[in-house]
Amino acid sequence: MTQSDSQVDVLIVGAGPAGLMLALWLSRLGINTRIVDKRTDKVFSGQADGFQVRTLEILDSFGIGERVWKEANHMIEVSFWNPDENGVIRRNNTAPDNVSGLSRFTESVLHQGRMESFFLDAIAASHPHPSGSSAVKVERMVLPTSLSIDEAAADDDDAYPVTVTLRHLTEEEATPTQRLSNLSDGLFRSNLAGDDVGDMLERSKAREGVHEETVKAKFVVGCDGAHSWTRKALGPDFEMQGEMTDYIWGVLDIVPITDFPDVRNRSMIHSASNGSLMIIPRENKLVRLYIQLTEVSVDGGRIDRSKITPEIIFNAARKIISPYKLDYHYCDWWTAYQIGQRVGNHFSKVDRVFLAGDAVHTHSPKAGQGMNVSMQDAYNLGWKLGLVCKKVMQRSILSTYELERKQIADELIAFDHKFSRLFSGRPAKDILDETGVSMEEFSKAFEMSHMFTSGIGVDYSPSALVSKPREAHQLLNEDKAADLKSDQDKPSNGVDSILDLAKNCKPGMRFPSFQVVAQAGARPWQLHHKMPSDGRFRIVVFAGDILSAPRRDLVNALGAWLAEHVLARAPKMDLSPGADPHAGTMRFKTDAAPSAVDVLLLHNSKRLEVEILRDLHETYHPFDSKLGWDYDKVFVDEESYHNGHGEAFKGYGVDPGKGAVVVVRPDGYVGLVSSLEEDGWKAVETWFERVLKMS
Amino acid sequence: MTQSDSQVDVLIVGAGPAGLMLALWLSRLGINTRIVDKRTDKVFSGQADGFQVRTLEILDSFGIGERVWKEANHMIEVSFWNPDENGVIRRNNTAPDNVSGLSRFTESVLHQGRMESFFLDAIAASHPHPSGSSAVKVERMVLPTSLSIDEAAADDDDAYPVTVTLRHLTEEEATPTQRLSNLSDGLFRSNLAGDDVGDMLERSKAREGVHEETVKAKFVVGCDGAHSWTRKALGPDFEMQGEMTDYIWGVLDIVPITDFPDVRNRSMIHSASNGSLMIIPRENKLVRLYIQLTEVSVDGGRIDRSKITPEIIFNAARKIISPYKLDYHYCDWWTAYQIGQRVGNHFSKVDRVFLAGDAVHTHSPKAGQGMNVSMQDAYNLGWKLGLVCKKVMQRSILSTYELERKQIADELIAFDHKFSRLFSGRPAKDILDETGVSMEEFSKAFEMSHMFTSGIGVDYSPSALVSKPREAHQLLNEDKAADLKSDQDKPSNGVDSILDLAKNCKPGMRFPSFQVVAQAGARPWQLHHKMPSDGRFRIVVFAGDILSAPRRDLVNALGAWLAEHVLARAPKMDLSPGADPHAGTMRFKTDAAPSAVDVLLLHNSKRLEVEILRDLHETYHPFDSKLGWDYDKVFVDEESYHNGHGEAFKGYGVDPGKGAVVVVRPDGYVGLVSSLEEDGWKAVETWFERVLKMS
Repeated sequence: MTQSDSQVDVLIVGAGPAGLMLALWLSRLGINTRIVDKRTDKVFSGQADGFQVRTLEILDSFGIGERVWKEANHMIEVSFWNPDENGVIRRNNTAPDNVSGLSRFTESVLHQGRMESFFLDAIAASHPHPSGSSAVKVERMVLPTSLSIDEAAADDDDAYPVTVTLRHLTEEEATPTQRLSNLSDGLFRSNLAGDDVGDMLERSKAREGVHEETVKAKFVVGCDGAHSWTRKALGPDFEMQGEMTDYIWGVLDIVPITDFPDVRNRSMIHSASNGSLMIIPRENKLVRLYIQLTEVSVDGGRIDRSKITPEIIFNAARKIISPYKLDYHYCDWWTAYQIGQRVGNHFSKVDRVFLAGDAVHTHSPKAGQGMNVSMQDAYNLGWKLGLVCKKVMQRSILSTYELERKQIADELIAFDHKFSRLFSGRPAKDILDETGVSMEEFSKAFEMSHMFTSGIGVDYSPSALVSKPREAHQLLNEDKAADLKSDQDKPSNGVDSILDLAKNCKPGMRFPSFQVVAQAGARPWQLHHKMPSDGRFRIVVFAGDILSAPRRDLVNALGAWLAEHVLARAPKMDLSPGADPHAGTMRFKTDAAPSAVDVLLLHNSKRLEVEILRDLHETYHPFDSKLGWDYDKVFVDEESYHNGHGEAFKGYGVDPGKGAVVVVRPDGYVGLVSSLEEDGWKAVETWFERVLKMS
Repeated sequence: MTQSDSQVDVLIVGAGPAGLMLALWLSRLGINTRIVDKRTDKVFSGQADGFQVRTLEILDSFGIGERVWKEANHMIEVSFWNPDENGVIRRNNTAPDNVSGLSRFTESVLHQGRMESFFLDAIAASHPHPSGSSAVKVERMVLPTSLSIDEAAADDDDAYPVTVTLRHLTEEEATPTQRLSNLSDGLFRSNLAGDDVGDMLERSKAREGVHEETVKAKFVVGCDGAHSWTRKALGPDFEMQGEMTDYIWGVLDIVPITDFPDVRNRSMIHSASNGSLMIIPRENKLVRLYIQLTEVSVDGGRIDRSKITPEIIFNAARKIISPYKLDYHYCDWWTAYQIGQRVGNHFSKVDRVFLAGDAVHTHSPKAGQGMNVSMQDAYNLGWKLGLVCKKVMQRSILSTYELERKQIADELIAFDHKFSRLFSGRPAKDILDETGVSMEEFSKAFEMSHMFTSGIGVDYSPSALVSKPREAHQLLNEDKAADLKSDQDKPSNGVDSILDLAKNCKPGMRFPSFQVVAQAGARPWQLHHKMPSDGRFRIVVFAGDILSAPRRDLVNALGAWLAEHVLARAPKMDLSPGADPHAGTMRFKTDAAPSAVDVLLLHNSKRLEVEILRDLHETYHPFDSKLGWDYDKVFVDEESYHNGHGEAFKGYGVDPGKGAVVVVRPDGYVGLVSSLEEDGWKAVETWFERVLKMS
């Protein structure tokens, strides 16, 4: 055995969607990062496929959303089919698959492997960062074998308290034994399959010259799936809690040859006695079928896996969809799974080792949540780790990861529990049939679930990062309040949001996007496009009519105040040359690194009567001695020349007569809503004092 | 000297935007193609930068439009500045830079090197074509040294009548002597610089072991710029006609440090006595300045190039923009040019060797036309060559290249002649100043030019490919009519369009795009996205209300008729796996190659009451034994769930009560507008009989 030692800021275990999202964040922030995966390559077919609208917004903030949006099938409509009085399936209802006005995106479907490719491309294209970190590369066929934390050093900002041993496998050792060919390995990675890490270790142990290295890391993140090695390495205190059901479902990705009329809609079919089928229309003429396997029984917790074959699954689908005919020539993938909901009891250990994605929550795939919630775990964690490594943000903020994401996992499990039981249940025969599921009940539950499944409904609890209004704190249940770890994490961070000022910018929820017009150049933009995931916090000043002299004076006084009390005190932060996806590669460097806090201004005066340099304080058009003034911080809520009116003040729920100041976190969630008037300014400063390492 | 021989369908000389556009077309069509360039690499800064809306539509049809659209600066607004009564420049007017409603794109700016990268990426990503052709690669440092055409074989479909000798250069031989560094080579590639091919040949001639090869080609296309070697090789009959002016202009690409308030608008500044300046706001904080050099004189046709330096150009800009201050830290590129307009007298020789782009038209760059018209030359030629090589289309159609593109070049030259004189002229001192250019005159000319500069105004003359209505033929002037070469090319192709049926689908002009809703799946689409550049002709059936029984019967009878008279008789054509950019890579192959003619249907019945398989003839949902029915050919003009109403019938100018049948060429231009009624069907068949190799 050969041996070597090294040191890294963040070590990511697992290169699925969660691990890759984290690696992308960290490479954009210029953090010294490694990402290892035990497998030989990425996923080429099957697995997850659903993209929720919030996920698309997040991917768009990194400049890769449009690749998914372009290739994916956009799922627009859903059909519900139920047995009629003769037991024959009939279309009962057709409805939109998305809530209107929630986002500029709609739910979309594309297989996980394409997503992984987009991440890999974006990580590879990450330009040399001014901080000098080298490009992140996925190291495949690498398996961790031990992990320890020097807890005494956990509170030292400069320490590398986590030690991990990594073993480098050969291709043969890294290839799972059950993975023979694409079609015969349907149960590979299913929750009906066992963990294969033991096998891998066993096979590599005997080899002469096996290479192991010891890595010392500031932080380690386990994105290593349902059988998470990292979770197990953290000891018996870390466990998955929840239960499995007796429901077994099969999955087929096929190009269907069928006369079923709604095969390009999302369709929910409850048959009279053969179980349920869900159709998910996919990219590339594929559809995914989720098929209830009523004939596979769970015998005392054991399932006879030999009974689960593509033929059995396909025949079950044919029975459910009858009298329509179903056939196929191409089958891209198949699998089966047992429905169950489990969630980890801890998401981190001493805020030095973290768990994300399937490593801390597993559930049924039919609502298309898994990959989304996993990527969003990593999206929540990435900037926090990055800004702590850069010493821009206080380390205590890391405790908000578990606070925020365990809450979401719990909500997901509760949702899935309800939804999968409704869908696996027998359809009601008539109105008196109480054990059956009525179509009305199901349609209603489906509709209610939109806000949750879209990801837009996420509403994080109060913490140093989320200042809720005073009355909202009182709604917090006792348990959650007790969970908050330090004085600093107490609800409201010592400052209260004033919800009325920006009714649709809710602290803890994502800051929405509306079209605004650039003051300089008149281009219409989604405001999200001016808030890319570059690691910066943003103060959005809803200025109202800046051509009214008192308002202009107030807004400029705020600018001067922010310059002195926030921007000058906040740490500076070099930006990645690829940080703004809509600027291409930023080839021209600033003379001085910008502040970690960025200020955007939205007004509603007549654009042609405003001149940025003449009318506004320099906080709203910062000067750099190499690049001149920045003209890209001031926007107008007015009709664009060719793209209509974004009605942004209305959309954000801000009365232009009052204005508002909204603090947005680097992940796009609202931290604080405060007043444009002088009495609201201090809250902004206090908010940042609790979060950043202010000078 | 070593020697080798080979054979190729199409040899492209020159890998600038025109050559790369052609290479992309041919690789999508699976044509055996080579592309050679004498330079060592692509352009990294400077050169062309303007993207007109039609160009963006074309790039989008290949799936690369959104890369330009995302990185480019969208130019939305234009400001006009003129001297006031004291000779101080003042903003005189501000106006939109684009005509509203013309296209879903607006004029955009990005440097040519990025465009070349996008082409190279797209060509490299061209998947192995079913026809078995290998991927196209740009061969750099390759210079043609001789060209001959065996004219006796020019009419033989299977012949390779063009022989070209190619010399492979070393890097040193291929590096132009005047290209020393980025900033000192400002006049490299300017029209003030001489041709360097002679130098290159001289340098390589002496070398021992220089490698030459003889290539026999079906077709050769010279996309080799203003000094076109190919044009010269065609002999003295091929000449550029036109004149140079005495106006010299400089160009600077800088990141400006300025208090000029409109620096992020397109700005036209006429100073009182220091000449004119145009500001083009660019991507990446750059702006391009076009600066009139009033102090550089043209002495008897000779220009003292040593007087043209970045300092002189910058100082001229400072004087024009005064009293505003102008400075910079970053300069990305500079050059200078002499205004002139020249156009080639022939665009092809025996339809075996063709010229495209700067090789046949040069003019001043300020209207942002050069790269666009060049790419559009190649876009016009690419599918014609490709379909002739595939024996799908009749070879005689190739004569439409010169007919269509020489017309556009002539219009471009006339436009540029007028525009550049207006812009280089001295501003009028007052209303009585007749030799000066008044602001009103200039603004008006600028506005009038939009339709032309957008590229949307292109209106090709009648030919086998363009059936104008009968009355329109009479407007054709005698000269053009005499130019038409064969009986078959005569106006109207023996069939007449009926303009009234589709008022905004004008034969010879591009088929516009409106949002429609997919019958299956309810997704809103731009109809252009269902007409990608895959080499197929399209018949768009404007069906109206197909739930009315007589109309449905008529539409289905048309479907049966088209199946027999057009689809079955048209050649079959394998599609590239990347042919539909919105489907990702088409991984699943059809059992049978589809027809070269594709049929799309647009109706305006209630979508939820229509079922494709039940209500429509199979022509509108073709069946493939491996892929099942195609659900992607039927669209509705109705309100979408989340994206409003496309009002497509209105947009296309079709009365749903009457309906229409429109034939669209593979490049998106309208070929024929005919009637939905039985009396219009025959025109469609006749149109295709004149164009395709029908069985």
